[in-house]
Amino acid sequence: MLSPEERRDGFELCSRVDAERVFLGLGSFDQAQLVRNLPPEERRLWLRLLPPDDAADLLQRVPVFEREGLLALLDDETCCEVKALLAHAEDEAGGLMNPRFVRVRPEMTVDEAIRYVRKQPRERSGTVYYVYVLDAEQHLLGVLSFRELFSAPEHGTIAGLMRIDVITLNPATDEREVARLFGKHGFLAMPVVDDERRMVGVVTIDDVVEVEREAATEDIQKIGGGEALGAPYLSIGFGSMIKKRAGWLSALFLGEMLTATAMSHFEGEIAKAVVLALFVPLIISSGGNSGSQATTIVIRAMALGEFRLRDWARIAYREVRAGLVLGLVLGTIGVIRIYAWHRFFESYGTHWMSVALTVGLSLVGVVTFGTLAGSMLPFILRRLGFDPASASAPFVATLVDVSGLVIYFTVASVIMSGGLL
Amino acid sequence: MLSPEERRDGFELCSRVDAERVFLGLGSFDQAQLVRNLPPEERRLWLRLLPPDDAADLLQRVPVFEREGLLALLDDETCCEVKALLAHAEDEAGGLMNPRFVRVRPEMTVDEAIRYVRKQPRERSGTVYYVYVLDAEQHLLGVLSFRELFSAPEHGTIAGLMRIDVITLNPATDEREVARLFGKHGFLAMPVVDDERRMVGVVTIDDVVEVEREAATEDIQKIGGGEALGAPYLSIGFGSMIKKRAGWLSALFLGEMLTATAMSHFEGEIAKAVVLALFVPLIISSGGNSGSQATTIVIRAMALGEFRLRDWARIAYREVRAGLVLGLVLGTIGVIRIYAWHRFFESYGTHWMSVALTVGLSLVGVVTFGTLAGSMLPFILRRLGFDPASASAPFVATLVDVSGLVIYFTVASVIMSGGLL
Repeated sequence: MLSPEERRDGFELCSRVDAERVFLGLGSFDQAQLVRNLPPEERRLWLRLLPPDDAADLLQRVPVFEREGLLALLDDETCCEVKALLAHAEDEAGGLMNPRFVRVRPEMTVDEAIRYVRKQPRERSGTVYYVYVLDAEQHLLGVLSFRELFSAPEHGTIAGLMRIDVITLNPATDEREVARLFGKHGFLAMPVVDDERRMVGVVTIDDVVEVEREAATEDIQKIGGGEALGAPYLSIGFGSMIKKRAGWLSALFLGEMLTATAMSHFEGEIAKAVVLALFVPLIISSGGNSGSQATTIVIRAMALGEFRLRDWARIAYREVRAGLVLGLVLGTIGVIRIYAWHRFFESYGTHWMSVALTVGLSLVGVVTFGTLAGSMLPFILRRLGFDPASASAPFVATLVDVSGLVIYFTVASVIMSGGLL
Repeated sequence: MLSPEERRDGFELCSRVDAERVFLGLGSFDQAQLVRNLPPEERRLWLRLLPPDDAADLLQRVPVFEREGLLALLDDETCCEVKALLAHAEDEAGGLMNPRFVRVRPEMTVDEAIRYVRKQPRERSGTVYYVYVLDAEQHLLGVLSFRELFSAPEHGTIAGLMRIDVITLNPATDEREVARLFGKHGFLAMPVVDDERRMVGVVTIDDVVEVEREAATEDIQKIGGGEALGAPYLSIGFGSMIKKRAGWLSALFLGEMLTATAMSHFEGEIAKAVVLALFVPLIISSGGNSGSQATTIVIRAMALGEFRLRDWARIAYREVRAGLVLGLVLGTIGVIRIYAWHRFFESYGTHWMSVALTVGLSLVGVVTFGTLAGSMLPFILRRLGFDPASASAPFVATLVDVSGLVIYFTVASVIMSGGLL
């Protein structure tokens, strides 16, 4: 990995064409860093390479007080377009779209339209997949793929050729919804129209790739038990990284303190049978592991739209059964382990059978509960309006730890009453 | 979520055009399920809608013994193409590519090329972003974007216009590497050439979207502590799901058994000071949480190519510092908690100060160790040739639990010797 300075130096060494290619291939975060590291007189050149939507993304990665200076480097028309884009939230269709697209009139013939499209300067027409048919007030009437236009008979009219059942986006459509629509329909581009159906821009599939990648990163970081970092690991400052990580860790820690409270209720039992304490980490971690497994599976399936809120009962039924089976598997392994240690090391004294039974039964209970809780937590969070991905593995583990302790010591006191306890 | 039968029925109700659109937008897993649920006489119609690469994907989701029957429904040419694709691994460029693309000769003029492209039947030319310039032996000479072709002066020749420094894929290029190259260069399509530089197909960006989505799903499911399910949650059978989940859970359980062994070494200490047992879940879960946070951040940054294997020392240095700070934060909260309980409930007897000191210092040690171990584990796994995403949150937690117990009881015996112990 190169530092910003090394990258800038390497950048200046490579040929102009290569440098342009590398620059255009960078994410907006790295583009911003590079431009800010260049001497002021060179910034204009690079900034003007970018289409308006990418220029807007770059500006959003730059401290607010530097934005005006960079905006002034753009030509007037692009500057207007970029300002309009900056007015939209970055994570909505309005912030993703390119305001440049190829528009034709419905009364044109195919030949006129082709000649018209061929004459458009390339940098004013964006990436072309579709040709949009607009009336004089910029209302979207229909759409035609570039390919369809070029293989149509020369004398047909656009109006006769265009598809009119166009699926459109609103500037306020959330970026994850945009990605879902692209995935569902297999489009390469989707038009963005305002409330009066006037066309304002185009979102293309390459923007969606970026959205999906960022969304997956956010989900992964949340599942791991932190806030989304929001920037590449090596670019984010040490202080802000700590802040993002310490928040969740402290919250989890406060939750986990309940285990100390729960344990103190069973202090008497532990004092009488210290052997019980030995299995505490094993029991609670099994609940945590099965819970985080269930929660990640459910979170990802939700993110991919595999099921909806109303499917919760079906998932719950499936996960309870899964939890029982998994609990039986782990419980059996646990009982075998205790029996083996009893046979070979005489570890657990004369009461080894009640210890084995307690551990085995607790595992079934804890794993079943952990699996169910882990799978339902994303549904509950979503129902309450939170991001289901906040049901991170550590969050579920913390939740399950306390209940795991209660299950374990309750089973213990039932089985061992009259014996060890 | 609809069952396969409901979906088939709904599918038959909607208009032909809508149905085609829905069908083409489905993932290959759902397409396969749908086609298999249709009466045999209708299958041909739907299968023939698909371009060869998607048809090959569909066939890969179908039991082997049904493949021949479905292949026979395709026209001869497509059938050949699909068979050729099935020979490639599904997760390599050869399995992703579409063997159909638009090819022109270098000696053509722009006008000739445009007329030639316009005459190609649409279903034989795939999605068009680029026009590929090939010689008579199908060697790739250059490339031209569709857009460049159409805005070029009419009488220029293709040879004079084409770009010759084409970045190509090999049929054996791994799909994650393909996705990385697309991301790096911002391409919409990349040509696939064999070892003699003969062009064999095109990978387009919509295939890459699918690859990225599947890769993120796999990573997320592994981070959650399971094998990648490899199929949508509701489509996978209960038995095979249990098998995939039980494997990792049992492995983790076996690892976690070491905690019982570790605890038994400190049985004497626990018997003397039961108060020590109360904080065991708190201590080990803090190590696990900070470890899984660190591991997910590193895994994702690796998957996005933010750093490479040789950066490990830099990351280790950063994470040790992060761990120390995070440990101090949690340790401070822990000490405050114990002091508060001492003040208000007189919970921990006369030795509350040594308890507080033990818990606080252990937290610093455990969190620092957890953070470092969590961040380095993906590097170690990758160095050994494993998938770094296997360093799941539960895996790290299990690893850190045992060492956390050792740290805790060691700190305790140093601080409390002469007092409680």
